[in-house]
Amino acid sequence: MTVNELVLQMGEAGVFMGGNLAKAVDIYEQMVKEGVYIFLTLAGALTPAGMRKIILTLIKKRLVNAVVSTGANLVHDTMEALGGSFYQGSPYLDDSKLLNAEVDRIYDILVTEKDFREKFDDPLLAIYADIDQRLNGRLISINELLIEVAKRLPTSDCIIKACYENGVKLFSPTISDSVFGLQMAIYNRLHKGNLHVDAFQDLQEMWDIRESHDKAGAIVLGGGVPKNYVFQSFFFSRKKLDYVIQITLDRPETGGLSGAPPEEAVSWGKVKPDANKVVVVSEVTVALPIIVAALLERLDKK
Amino acid sequence: MTVNELVLQMGEAGVFMGGNLAKAVDIYEQMVKEGVYIFLTLAGALTPAGMRKIILTLIKKRLVNAVVSTGANLVHDTMEALGGSFYQGSPYLDDSKLLNAEVDRIYDILVTEKDFREKFDDPLLAIYADIDQRLNGRLISINELLIEVAKRLPTSDCIIKACYENGVKLFSPTISDSVFGLQMAIYNRLHKGNLHVDAFQDLQEMWDIRESHDKAGAIVLGGGVPKNYVFQSFFFSRKKLDYVIQITLDRPETGGLSGAPPEEAVSWGKVKPDANKVVVVSEVTVALPIIVAALLERLDKK
Amino acid sequence: MTVNELVLQMGEAGVFMGGNLAKAVDIYEQMVKEGVYIFLTLAGALTPAGMRKIILTLIKKRLVNAVVSTGANLVHDTMEALGGSFYQGSPYLDDSKLLNAEVDRIYDILVTEKDFREKFDDPLLAIYADIDQRLNGRLISINELLIEVAKRLPTSDCIIKACYENGVKLFSPTISDSVFGLQMAIYNRLHKGNLHVDAFQDLQEMWDIRESHDKAGAIVLGGGVPKNYVFQSFFFSRKKLDYVIQITLDRPETGGLSGAPPEEAVSWGKVKPDANKVVVVSEVTVALPIIVAALLERLDKK
Amino acid sequence: MTVNELVLQMGEAGVFMGGNLAKAVDIYEQMVKEGVYIFLTLAGALTPAGMRKIILTLIKKRLVNAVVSTGANLVHDTMEALGGSFYQGSPYLDDSKLLNAEVDRIYDILVTEKDFREKFDDPLLAIYADIDQRLNGRLISINELLIEVAKRLPTSDCIIKACYENGVKLFSPTISDSVFGLQMAIYNRLHKGNLHVDAFQDLQEMWDIRESHDKAGAIVLGGGVPKNYVFQSFFFSRKKLDYVIQITLDRPETGGLSGAPPEEAVSWGKVKPDANKVVVVSEVTVALPIIVAALLERLDKK
Repeated sequence: MTVNELVLQMGEAGVFMGGNLAKAVDIYEQMVKEGVYIFLTLAGALTPAGMRKIILTLIKKRLVNAVVSTGANLVHDTMEALGGSFYQGSPYLDDSKLLNAEVDRIYDILVTEKDFREKFDDPLLAIYADIDQRLNGRLISINELLIEVAKRLPTSDCIIKACYENGVKLFSPTISDSVFGLQMAIYNRLHKGNLHVDAFQDLQEMWDIRESHDKAGAIVLGGGVPKNYVFQSFFFSRKKLDYVIQITLDRPETGGLSGAPPEEAVSWGKVKPDANKVVVVSEVTVALPIIVAALLERLDKK
Repeated sequence: MTVNELVLQMGEAGVFMGGNLAKAVDIYEQMVKEGVYIFLTLAGALTPAGMRKIILTLIKKRLVNAVVSTGANLVHDTMEALGGSFYQGSPYLDDSKLLNAEVDRIYDILVTEKDFREKFDDPLLAIYADIDQRLNGRLISINELLIEVAKRLPTSDCIIKACYENGVKLFSPTISDSVFGLQMAIYNRLHKGNLHVDAFQDLQEMWDIRESHDKAGAIVLGGGVPKNYVFQSFFFSRKKLDYVIQITLDRPETGGLSGAPPEEAVSWGKVKPDANKVVVVSEVTVALPIIVAALLERLDKK
Repeated sequence: MTVNELVLQMGEAGVFMGGNLAKAVDIYEQMVKEGVYIFLTLAGALTPAGMRKIILTLIKKRLVNAVVSTGANLVHDTMEALGGSFYQGSPYLDDSKLLNAEVDRIYDILVTEKDFREKFDDPLLAIYADIDQRLNGRLISINELLIEVAKRLPTSDCIIKACYENGVKLFSPTISDSVFGLQMAIYNRLHKGNLHVDAFQDLQEMWDIRESHDKAGAIVLGGGVPKNYVFQSFFFSRKKLDYVIQITLDRPETGGLSGAPPEEAVSWGKVKPDANKVVVVSEVTVALPIIVAALLERLDKK
Repeated sequence: MTVNELVLQMGEAGVFMGGNLAKAVDIYEQMVKEGVYIFLTLAGALTPAGMRKIILTLIKKRLVNAVVSTGANLVHDTMEALGGSFYQGSPYLDDSKLLNAEVDRIYDILVTEKDFREKFDDPLLAIYADIDQRLNGRLISINELLIEVAKRLPTSDCIIKACYENGVKLFSPTISDSVFGLQMAIYNRLHKGNLHVDAFQDLQEMWDIRESHDKAGAIVLGGGVPKNYVFQSFFFSRKKLDYVIQITLDRPETGGLSGAPPEEAVSWGKVKPDANKVVVVSEVTVALPIIVAALLERLDKK
């Protein structure tokens, strides 16, 4: 049985989260067919959890138009692209022993500090220095910073460069909240750097994107700032999201945006009242591979 | 891409819940290969949510040896087998209007009270009367009651009868907590019935099962009493569960058994310290179809 | 600041779970004032988690009229009443070591198998033998079994006996799914006992309770079979629950009853459309002590 | 019974989340006694949910040293301080009707777009214009922007100004992801503004704070970027967090930082192996008022 056949069976029952998973594939397929502008938002430890290949596939096949990511997902993805590794561990390991071994844990994923240093920190510092030299004090946007980083990365097999090469916009409003930020602080302080990045500038581009497309959809993985960043860009406009796929284990009852159903965003004018929208209550590493496998199978048939 | 190919890819990353899903398939495959005695426990609204076909497949292919179910899952399954229907609804419907329309809601599933009456209540009352006449006051176990019901059901396409016909044991320690119970109360009171069922008798059979098998495993869907009923049967014995697959969205922090990881059961002597065990934090209608599709694909290949 | 003053402040904001907690106190106060028939349902490891004193207070002050409990909560409560102890542990302990030390773990609670044996199993076997001798083969209900146990318990400081002494009905439809069941199996097999208990009989009493009271409410701790057992008793009647307080961390999206909001039960005719009802999404050991402390403070003032 | 008396009783049982709640109060008390540098992080819709008074109390009593907040919490807090209102609604309202009525919903909280415009957007635009004039193109940090806003706010009854007046540092690394950002985009585009803010500069101040204090603790409400922003600042240092109180309903199994237990941060060197740390799995509006009320009661006694 193919993945899409399984999804179609889930869609027949059409209830609970199996039904919502099937609906998510239908929505994605419809977005692709209609040529909707598609935002993909990344929060949570997705790239170390093996989702980077799927995300890269979506970028390279241009099945998304813009990616909005936490800084950490870009850090982990780039580190792996530059030769770093994530290992299978366990949530039950002794963190004190890991500390002594210089191994960092993300739930059941392990990564060495050596890899961080050699496969990310050092290359990034060199890239920062090179960018700094070229900019000569000129203020840039986060988006531009990522493009400058992309130009200097030696591999296409990472989100930052794949976005750059495939005309997919990349936003990371929380980039300072990651090793990109920590290394920037080190670069400017210890290496006497002079790199400066505008915290708000990219909102202009989000504004232009929103106004220049008739229809838009969002695939929300995990919620957080990336979700809000896309949703809020529709707050002050007549344009609204036409499609929403949201995959999260966060709950609505806390009032936090991550768990809030897209219905709530209808009241804010961010999502159309008749938008095609679904929440798949699931951990992303279960739902996303199924959705993408089924989507690709459907698209291949045509 | 086949479902098993997708699962194998998830297993390569091997982390988060995608990794655990892949591990669940490995454990199931190993249980089948080793001829382990397999308990399947059912809690939550699984049968109305379209899981009944999958469960029936497992029973008919003898990929489980015993089923422990809430009463409600057996009620809903039998009702559908006798011609009743579950419909796709929405969690946002107005329940007052549904009340007036005599439609019952289970999250986003709808079922009519007419179907309940005609496709379950009335047939069951007739079956109870027939059993009562035959027993003539003799006390039976819940297990025996289910066998007597099975004999009188006109279709093999339901869990109660499929278990009976395929030599799969069926336990429902909470059967009184379902329409089986409500109809029993009506039968004995309004129809002057004299049906009596022993609440504890089946524990003897659970005891015998445990002692007569070298290895045992449990596939736990949702938790609840069915999970505990299987786990507790290993409490006072040197025998312990060798394999556990647990699919649930319940959390461990409440201390309730449904969300408790199998590790906890190691301390109680219910699960072997070196048991092969996994928790898939997922709604069952997402995880179970994938696990079973991948398992069947693997078994077919041999 | 007193607990009630804090709750009143939460009620002023009136939103999110702080607001729902405040509403729960209001509902409880109203139930008491109106003399509503109050069901209290217990699921999850409440009694070992220190909730037994609060539950005993509610029983002894007759602030509940009927208790519906899992077997395990009664086992743990009785064991502690007979001198057993629960200890503070940690969810991170090594369960293999606990197994060797004959210590059982419930999340971060520890209990010794020695206590189980000496403070529960042995006394219970003696009580079973005594009841058996007196009944001489007569079939009794679970309710009657609990009354017979109550008569033989040496302390009023446990739920079973406190209910008996204070005219509070006690139901435990899942009693076989606990050490009460395991010991019954041992008693009847190894001690040649002849104790037999009717699985369905108590439903008659639930029926009578429902029909003989104008108004009823349910305080649902954790969900599970005890919740359904109360709710289902209103399924076939014009009587419906007028009040519902539900405290749980379970989610609605699984379709399981534990996480289902009381609105859903409106469609089934179990809860009145205009019932005063609230769900407090919280672990019980946080919410219950606050609710009861605030309630007692309010009642004391009058 | 006072709140602290209740908390002390919860601490006696010491298990499940009631026990963790009591432990949280102990940790907070200890941090205050030891003069630890205390970070308070705010994520989720805390200020509209009535937590702003409690947060303001902590700031004004200098029971925190630095606040790290999402932009939205500062927006909502400031709007209310300037005369806007949040109303009690329901999660079951029809969002299409709310859209037409220009009412925005946050779970069960309602706020009018009129209030947003009149009590936040318009005043903020005027403030931006005034700051812009004064800065004359000079690049500032987010921290400095908030200080400039604080100087121009007419009331001390809001987080931004209260932090400024009480020497409490205020960070908002995600400020662009809020109406502060949307209005900045509008100001710079439609009003030809020239305000520019450095996305990374505040990391220098976080660095200095970390290095200049012997001991530090974090009170984490909800997780998200604010949590990570504090935790990551300890990543590259020998300094580590000595205390962590984390209140969240997010789960660890997704691998996201919000639900990750502080133990995980030990492996990263962000939290000391022997740090005094606790996770209270609870919605913030339940746990925070209790913790703060109990803390104040304890501090008052001395």
